[in-house]
Amino acid sequence: MAQNIYDDPQFYEGYSQLRRSVDGLAGAPEWPALRALLPDLRGLRVVDLGCGYGWFCRWAQEQGAARILGLDVSEKMLARAKELTSAAGITYQRTDLESFELPADSFDIAYSSLTLHYIADIAIFFAKVQRALRPGGCFVFSTEHPIYMAPSRPAWATGSDGHQTWPVDGYLAEGPRTTDWFAPGVVKHHRTIGTTLNLLIRQGFTITHVEEWGPTDDQISANPQWTKERERPMFLLVAAQRA
Amino acid sequence: MAQNIYDDPQFYEGYSQLRRSVDGLAGAPEWPALRALLPDLRGLRVVDLGCGYGWFCRWAQEQGAARILGLDVSEKMLARAKELTSAAGITYQRTDLESFELPADSFDIAYSSLTLHYIADIAIFFAKVQRALRPGGCFVFSTEHPIYMAPSRPAWATGSDGHQTWPVDGYLAEGPRTTDWFAPGVVKHHRTIGTTLNLLIRQGFTITHVEEWGPTDDQISANPQWTKERERPMFLLVAAQRA
Repeated sequence: MAQNIYDDPQFYEGYSQLRRSVDGLAGAPEWPALRALLPDLRGLRVVDLGCGYGWFCRWAQEQGAARILGLDVSEKMLARAKELTSAAGITYQRTDLESFELPADSFDIAYSSLTLHYIADIAIFFAKVQRALRPGGCFVFSTEHPIYMAPSRPAWATGSDGHQTWPVDGYLAEGPRTTDWFAPGVVKHHRTIGTTLNLLIRQGFTITHVEEWGPTDDQISANPQWTKERERPMFLLVAAQRA
Repeated sequence: MAQNIYDDPQFYEGYSQLRRSVDGLAGAPEWPALRALLPDLRGLRVVDLGCGYGWFCRWAQEQGAARILGLDVSEKMLARAKELTSAAGITYQRTDLESFELPADSFDIAYSSLTLHYIADIAIFFAKVQRALRPGGCFVFSTEHPIYMAPSRPAWATGSDGHQTWPVDGYLAEGPRTTDWFAPGVVKHHRTIGTTLNLLIRQGFTITHVEEWGPTDDQISANPQWTKERERPMFLLVAAQRA
């Protein structure tokens, strides 16, 4: 089973206060870029893999999706999703994303936001998503960018002249990375962009868009403290289509 | 016209002494990985965009390619190619890779080794390659990896404890990077992996493989000094197929 850090009380307490937890999609700076990769959802069957509080599920419902399934491993997050974002057509289900099963050809859209880096074996994950999608269906996801995740010390390094850089090492050493983020011992799985894309391709997906996310000029005007996010990408966004 | 740094005497003098210049493909550590992306060349029409000394052209000829066109902007390199690697079926031609024209549907394989980072507008470049390939034809290339190219100071940084990292900054600021490499003022063009892949996709290519290159275990056993090349990728290798 995947590490279920979201049900750790200390982690949950910290995470639940993030802007993206409080404000939902509007609090996630990469959301406009991710949304742009989605087709019109009217009448479509959507699965959200790692749905958290269900902000995306509710948005999909508002867009007119026919049926939305939100899957997450965290009991606490699903309980909150049921309070916050319930609506007709949305089903929330507790599921270990390393061992889930979905019926074949049952979704038009698979969506996953910042979840893949918690999954050790994404080849199996991609195979299940591929099988659950109808031919021509779309898979849109975000994950932590490998540049962000690789370093042994993932924090800005300050040179003797005060210039800050992101200290990359271990980029080609794929595997777990343990950090302290709200709680000690949060395990994420680092893999290169190449590995992620090649596994999708081998599962029969066609890559349609790859984006190494950074804030737009408008976002930086509104949030000048985000300027640094252009120095190295924090997120990787991918869109792919099932053959 | 693209900067023709290879005809700068100082640059040429330095470059011509690199292992990959002296030993050809055997001196290029990424060659086995790049070769693995190529199909059997027997009977195929091949164009090499940025052919340098023609080592790949001669190899393609030995593999049984029907016809090989080697293009390069450098007069000095083409002169040496004609001495070193000439063979029946190979044509060398001096061409500015920012303004070349090739007949439509005239090649089965387009190949380009460590050339794209010298080209400012790769959208135009990809459009020309797409047009020159037959439907189903393959485009295989290597380029400097954006992690390698992005930094304002592209050199290992040493922390106070002696640990070395690659200091990434400016990753999302695409555009020229000027470095001193054998000669002052060598201009390369930094772009993200996302930009490169999306431009290929928009030109009608299907991405078939993406590799952020690092040395294999065997290569490190033979060349222990390459261990560091696993800390951050130096090269990006891509294979794509014309729709």
